[in-house]
Amino acid sequence: MYSLKNDYSEGAHPQILEALLKTNLEQSEGYGEDKYCIEAKKLIKEKLQNDNVDIHFIPGGTQTNLTSIAAFLRPHEASIAANTGHIFVHETGAIESTGHKVISVNVEDGKLRKEHVLSVLKEHTDEHMVKPKLVYISNSTEIGTIYKKSELEELSQVCRENNLLLYMDGARLGSALCCKENDLDISDFTNLTDAFYIGGTKNGAFMGEALVICNDNLKDDFRYNIKQRGALLAKGRLLGIQFMELFRDNLFFEIGQHANDMADILRTGISELGYKYLVDSPSNQIFPILPNRVIKKLQEKYSFYIWASTDENNSSIRLVTSWATSKEAVLEFIEDLKI
Amino acid sequence: MYSLKNDYSEGAHPQILEALLKTNLEQSEGYGEDKYCIEAKKLIKEKLQNDNVDIHFIPGGTQTNLTSIAAFLRPHEASIAANTGHIFVHETGAIESTGHKVISVNVEDGKLRKEHVLSVLKEHTDEHMVKPKLVYISNSTEIGTIYKKSELEELSQVCRENNLLLYMDGARLGSALCCKENDLDISDFTNLTDAFYIGGTKNGAFMGEALVICNDNLKDDFRYNIKQRGALLAKGRLLGIQFMELFRDNLFFEIGQHANDMADILRTGISELGYKYLVDSPSNQIFPILPNRVIKKLQEKYSFYIWASTDENNSSIRLVTSWATSKEAVLEFIEDLKI
Amino acid sequence: MYSLKNDYSEGAHPQILEALLKTNLEQSEGYGEDKYCIEAKKLIKEKLQNDNVDIHFIPGGTQTNLTSIAAFLRPHEASIAANTGHIFVHETGAIESTGHKVISVNVEDGKLRKEHVLSVLKEHTDEHMVKPKLVYISNSTEIGTIYKKSELEELSQVCRENNLLLYMDGARLGSALCCKENDLDISDFTNLTDAFYIGGTKNGAFMGEALVICNDNLKDDFRYNIKQRGALLAKGRLLGIQFMELFRDNLFFEIGQHANDMADILRTGISELGYKYLVDSPSNQIFPILPNRVIKKLQEKYSFYIWASTDENNSSIRLVTSWATSKEAVLEFIEDLKI
Amino acid sequence: MYSLKNDYSEGAHPQILEALLKTNLEQSEGYGEDKYCIEAKKLIKEKLQNDNVDIHFIPGGTQTNLTSIAAFLRPHEASIAANTGHIFVHETGAIESTGHKVISVNVEDGKLRKEHVLSVLKEHTDEHMVKPKLVYISNSTEIGTIYKKSELEELSQVCRENNLLLYMDGARLGSALCCKENDLDISDFTNLTDAFYIGGTKNGAFMGEALVICNDNLKDDFRYNIKQRGALLAKGRLLGIQFMELFRDNLFFEIGQHANDMADILRTGISELGYKYLVDSPSNQIFPILPNRVIKKLQEKYSFYIWASTDENNSSIRLVTSWATSKEAVLEFIEDLKI
Repeated sequence: MYSLKNDYSEGAHPQILEALLKTNLEQSEGYGEDKYCIEAKKLIKEKLQNDNVDIHFIPGGTQTNLTSIAAFLRPHEASIAANTGHIFVHETGAIESTGHKVISVNVEDGKLRKEHVLSVLKEHTDEHMVKPKLVYISNSTEIGTIYKKSELEELSQVCRENNLLLYMDGARLGSALCCKENDLDISDFTNLTDAFYIGGTKNGAFMGEALVICNDNLKDDFRYNIKQRGALLAKGRLLGIQFMELFRDNLFFEIGQHANDMADILRTGISELGYKYLVDSPSNQIFPILPNRVIKKLQEKYSFYIWASTDENNSSIRLVTSWATSKEAVLEFIEDLKI
Repeated sequence: MYSLKNDYSEGAHPQILEALLKTNLEQSEGYGEDKYCIEAKKLIKEKLQNDNVDIHFIPGGTQTNLTSIAAFLRPHEASIAANTGHIFVHETGAIESTGHKVISVNVEDGKLRKEHVLSVLKEHTDEHMVKPKLVYISNSTEIGTIYKKSELEELSQVCRENNLLLYMDGARLGSALCCKENDLDISDFTNLTDAFYIGGTKNGAFMGEALVICNDNLKDDFRYNIKQRGALLAKGRLLGIQFMELFRDNLFFEIGQHANDMADILRTGISELGYKYLVDSPSNQIFPILPNRVIKKLQEKYSFYIWASTDENNSSIRLVTSWATSKEAVLEFIEDLKI
Repeated sequence: MYSLKNDYSEGAHPQILEALLKTNLEQSEGYGEDKYCIEAKKLIKEKLQNDNVDIHFIPGGTQTNLTSIAAFLRPHEASIAANTGHIFVHETGAIESTGHKVISVNVEDGKLRKEHVLSVLKEHTDEHMVKPKLVYISNSTEIGTIYKKSELEELSQVCRENNLLLYMDGARLGSALCCKENDLDISDFTNLTDAFYIGGTKNGAFMGEALVICNDNLKDDFRYNIKQRGALLAKGRLLGIQFMELFRDNLFFEIGQHANDMADILRTGISELGYKYLVDSPSNQIFPILPNRVIKKLQEKYSFYIWASTDENNSSIRLVTSWATSKEAVLEFIEDLKI
Repeated sequence: MYSLKNDYSEGAHPQILEALLKTNLEQSEGYGEDKYCIEAKKLIKEKLQNDNVDIHFIPGGTQTNLTSIAAFLRPHEASIAANTGHIFVHETGAIESTGHKVISVNVEDGKLRKEHVLSVLKEHTDEHMVKPKLVYISNSTEIGTIYKKSELEELSQVCRENNLLLYMDGARLGSALCCKENDLDISDFTNLTDAFYIGGTKNGAFMGEALVICNDNLKDDFRYNIKQRGALLAKGRLLGIQFMELFRDNLFFEIGQHANDMADILRTGISELGYKYLVDSPSNQIFPILPNRVIKKLQEKYSFYIWASTDENNSSIRLVTSWATSKEAVLEFIEDLKI
């Protein structure tokens, strides 16, 4: 059984493991104040071409989202998210558990746009309703689509004009930035968002996300919030070492590129067999629509999610690639699909 | 500079690293439903001689405490803890952030006793005050002391008689169980507590705690709470593999024993030089009282916490040993102290 | 300017004021343990034909909803509500502020039905999503519609079959029960819901709602939760005296009937002039669709909410009647509409 | 049985009832935006000699405290309170239920002083602990003592120097300001605190507290927070009318003075019989120490709290006076004590 179920089926990229091995016996400070974390932050800031951001390493994505959003909002303030947004559907109400409503907007392609934000603002008129304050987006989105630079700029502008914070969940930012269709540079986010995170877990690390706080007003005392939410690892070096490796050279982007390349092979191969897609996603998650009997056959050899039933006889499935997905495996999948 | 500051200055025990290396390319299920987690739970249950407990792996101690206590309590219910208790002083109000008061009791030696619990119950008489519902203890305590079996039995009984839950923070349980003075077996806790956790982070793992839920009433839906608090790692295998190694044979206890042995050498050596201790702690944290000028000298070569000023000229320091502390280092410390 | 804006524009029903006057100098216990509260509970239980419910008086509706729902749910559990539901739109995220998501369902007429509940259950499959646990309905709804007995029975059954709690917001229960179309008796709710509240504020009281907890499992320690949320008035008698008056004889129902009678006059008069309604509401809130220029004219003499624009030239307005609405006023309104 | 148990045993001051009666049929805006609230705020601002404060009426004290403190603090920030402070002991963990720890300081006389605040700041050094941000005091305190102007000035200064907010619970401010020993004017608090509330419930109103926000940074969006916590009454006029009466002329102070006068008669009478006090309290709560057999005798005719056992044969009781306490009653109490 070969898994194309997600991008976290294997351990860490070998280069990361090697770094953990090499540094293992060195002594360091606890709680993320070690030299590896310091070095990793320096390397990321260089890639961001911005020395004026605050960077914090946090074990997981849900934790990063809940810690940040709870720290940024006052009690009556709410987030706006797409109905596909991870915080709206797939985090067990983590944001609400910190006291804040998530206002959802129905979108087709996973992406929030100016008109969605304005429509939410128009509906929220007084103190009998929550006050929308933060716009949550994911890039790539939960259905594999990505934001174009112009789209993000427009969203960023509408947020600034309306005193809203823009927060980007980058769980799969590596893949997003390595898409052919992408025209955003990782350094763009420091100008266009108030905070965003660079996902490690789904891009080659054992675990870990790098939260980047761009807006000066959101920086104070953030470590208190990390500790309070249980996200301050005693051996914080574990996160620092991983991000040091990801950003020392170009590993972070090489991993994103590899995942995308493997998805491209799948995408092209599946298209050539005449199949359509539920959504046109350029990143490492693709959603082909296949006959149910074909899906059944594939399931004997591959594991993946059945995403949605599209009609009586067909369903879309989700295939995800990662740093660990081999060219052999995806080529074999295409072959198996032919039969 | 050699650190005796804490038990998380180095990486993971080499045997754990090796296991991570060996399993790295295997594919597994996400979110802690992988074969390693399943195997690790099986091994721990064997050590606990109890198949009827639920075990969950959680990245850190604060997260384990807040997830558990918030899941176990209704909104108006509170915890009772020693004034030295980690949840009371050193978790940035994590329990309160989930809505629950922590009632503190002043104790001398870090240990809660029957009379403390009864005194809190006596003071909390009606609905104008929180309702005490959970007793939080740590073993070893934050100042290195440990519970004797009779003490824990008495505490357990007073909890049952008063419809209170007993929860034990085992961040340093490995060291506690390997003390010469200890007369508790790891299997005792499943009968004596409602839930407790076995600490990995401070006992050789990169990170990770194994929460053991003993009371059937507390088991339902616990994974929802783990996810909601951001504690469900996508690559949950990282925790499973580590605990698999710790409990496959006796690594968990060997690590506790080694740390204690190194602490014993320090303790004996320091005592032989005529110094006293702030508290009589048998585990891997010791608190010798030294002249301030001696401390200053030691700081040139060693890092450690200055714990408390005991008089004008003397202070107690905290020395902590771990799986990684070498015999050479502690012997050298004693030598350095002689001069 | 005459207000048809809501049912809380005037003070309290004169009979209530008189009772406050008469009892003013008597001494009583604080915090709702006075003889008036005790008597009011007795009277309500008689009307409910049920001695096995717990009744609590709480100053306002939002407070009743948030105190109850937070007390009834565990952290990962969520409520289901219509998209028009008060807790979803008009309580500033009060439920979320206690940590719980409100899952909304789009409905046409303000009423939740079996299929809505089942569809939410179908979507919420595992611990990555909140667990739906409580169904919130309002009767009358926020747009003036009411539940038929068969509808409530069906909803109650689907809740029981799926281990869901059914909670009814009765802010305007008085009007609902006095509609011609109503076939529910106030005593039915003790069998059909797990908890509900009888609204005083919008039915003649200065303020106050009577929460009725029917499900034994939800009763314990409820007063702790009232106190914790700040809803335990020192002079709780203020609530007891008001509900004593409302339920001593039939004042509660007389007020509901009067409000409905006044709404009937408006409804019939407006219909006779050929106008349609946004929604077919039998209770004390009606939503006629009028030409914008007519609305403008009416606004010179009456205050009311413009509810929604229905097309370029027409809008629906909300007219609400109460115990204090006079027959003269509504007849005059009809006259004014004719011109 | 005559009650000296508290200052909320009777209804409202007759002048308030009369105002409710007189205005009852007038129509007004809902949710505290009515003309009575507007007028009441104007009158209070005149007494405060300050037009630049924001005033909000809230039904009860616990609700005022929790709404304010939760609105003012970020998640990791905590309050400092005396161990006798209402928020620490007698609000069922209301502040903690909003996510914030209350750090307590043991004090003898119910009053926080500079050294207490500094000692808390000294102990809270880094992000592993909560960050003290708000100092909570009550005036009069829970044991009847009051702050002198110099004491409050010193506290205010230490708060400003350390970037702490000073919040005063004025549940019994009326009595405090009318003590002979008092040298504070009600207008002083707008300079010396960041926010405080003027208590209505315990000073002649049915219910209601007037929160005064003095610090500009705390004013924004406060009504959202009132609504979210369920404290925005639909018939907000009920609060406005009461405070209008209290502050139209001098009723607020006359009530405080009367309560104090009655307490003075008790205090003098009891002292003359040779009894001592648990604490030297100049306001409307006094704590005489009486032989247990005398207390038993008094209980046949009077209700009051037994506050604390002082030795084997004696206890202190709490006697509280209010606007409704009659001179005859307190004189009779003294007579009864003589026998």
